[in-house]
Amino acid sequence: MEDYFGNLIIIGGAEDKADKCEILKEVVKKTSSKGGPLIVLTAATEYPEEVGALYKKTFNRLHLHDIKIIDIKDRHDANKVEFCKEIESSGCVFFTGGDQLKITSLIGGTGLYESLKQAYRNGTLIVGTSAGASCVCSTMVVSGKDDDSPRKVALKMAPGLDIIRGVLIDQHFAQRGRIGRLLGGVAQNPESLGIGIDENTAIVVEGSSVFRVIGSGAVTVIDGSLITHTNISELLPQETLAITDIKIHILPRGYKYDMRNRVPIPKRENKEDKNEDS
Amino acid sequence: MEDYFGNLIIIGGAEDKADKCEILKEVVKKTSSKGGPLIVLTAATEYPEEVGALYKKTFNRLHLHDIKIIDIKDRHDANKVEFCKEIESSGCVFFTGGDQLKITSLIGGTGLYESLKQAYRNGTLIVGTSAGASCVCSTMVVSGKDDDSPRKVALKMAPGLDIIRGVLIDQHFAQRGRIGRLLGGVAQNPESLGIGIDENTAIVVEGSSVFRVIGSGAVTVIDGSLITHTNISELLPQETLAITDIKIHILPRGYKYDMRNRVPIPKRENKEDKNEDS
Repeated sequence: MEDYFGNLIIIGGAEDKADKCEILKEVVKKTSSKGGPLIVLTAATEYPEEVGALYKKTFNRLHLHDIKIIDIKDRHDANKVEFCKEIESSGCVFFTGGDQLKITSLIGGTGLYESLKQAYRNGTLIVGTSAGASCVCSTMVVSGKDDDSPRKVALKMAPGLDIIRGVLIDQHFAQRGRIGRLLGGVAQNPESLGIGIDENTAIVVEGSSVFRVIGSGAVTVIDGSLITHTNISELLPQETLAITDIKIHILPRGYKYDMRNRVPIPKRENKEDKNEDS
Repeated sequence: MEDYFGNLIIIGGAEDKADKCEILKEVVKKTSSKGGPLIVLTAATEYPEEVGALYKKTFNRLHLHDIKIIDIKDRHDANKVEFCKEIESSGCVFFTGGDQLKITSLIGGTGLYESLKQAYRNGTLIVGTSAGASCVCSTMVVSGKDDDSPRKVALKMAPGLDIIRGVLIDQHFAQRGRIGRLLGGVAQNPESLGIGIDENTAIVVEGSSVFRVIGSGAVTVIDGSLITHTNISELLPQETLAITDIKIHILPRGYKYDMRNRVPIPKRENKEDKNEDS
């Protein structure tokens, strides 16, 4: 799936479900445009019934009625042909929040995972919020200490769903003070672009390497390609990380970023896109 | 005082007072080397007696016994000739934590402020922790929302003590998720270098524009000189800030940074300085 960009909306968690619903309206719009049901995958959460019902109610209120809730309880479920078929014919697969390791440990290497990749290739919109956002990367951030200085031990990573390559995504970003842990992640391999997404904020990928930002917060892009020095490989686990010459961008609603060329695109340069400033 | 660099130790708050006391030992060492009493200025805190007594006890334990506590209660106190003389003949003036506006509103424009500047010119070590760290700048960070996306409204600033120019200092930096507010400050005038200091971490300025880092956390340097775009001047107060192409450095103990030339100096390049890695 290298360099393939389909349709993705990656949300930093806590998206507005009661007021303007800017992000979920974007999900509805793109799902309707593709056609087929929206499938809420509740694998990440410990409260699949409640979370599934809340999304169903919210999407119904936003005039999307073809909703299916699939709760994957075990790896046997994740190989069921009926679930796989539903994923393949869906307009959208929506990963809820919870624990990203629940998602990958249940779905990785199963028929449902193959169906998900197939669906993505065929234009199905993949949406993830919170844990669901982290898991779409090749390597995902699992846990790390919030509001702390960057340390080597601060970050645990694991293989993700590999839907989007070359990026490390972190969520609840400003709200939980996570820049330290994502800086640590990027320093470990600056080939990966760090993308920190605030709550009620999302990046929208639409078939190319350019994403645009929607929602009320900011997206922090951490570009480590110009790093001149880091002590990451010499550190004892509790020592503090050193990194020099990291480039970062803070991008709010309407701004774009080209992940392939690592170039931010300010809002003033894309005024022709009328729908993105709503 | 433009471009003048004397002796400063600027601490991000919550310095260790019970265990290794790395930072306070550095304060003791430099105070002894200058000669003269260490004056604890408790102007910032609402608990001057308790805070003063704690520092006195701690410094005594570190074998520094010539300690004076000066509590400035009002502007009249800040013009008392006896206090001014004590400041002028001191080895160190130590600003405690509390509220930085208490410091500047009590001391700004008084005889004690003049004496402080005079003492600094004459080699007295100036130390500030937490609120005492913020206030040494020309323009100081007063308050702002922690753990939030960068917003224009997020940051209130005020004229500081003007001991060190060209920098904006923020403290409790990683622990309170303050990168958003400091980014906003730097975007407002990228001529200012942003310096975010973690708890139990300090920068040591020793007569030149190069500081070195001591303590257990990191110092985050935000260099806005290469910013290519920001919406800061167009924003409504609650809108999210946009900034592209900010350069940052994460510097732990033993690393140095040249503020004038905006160049980080990794630890491996200054191995001749044996005392800084302790």
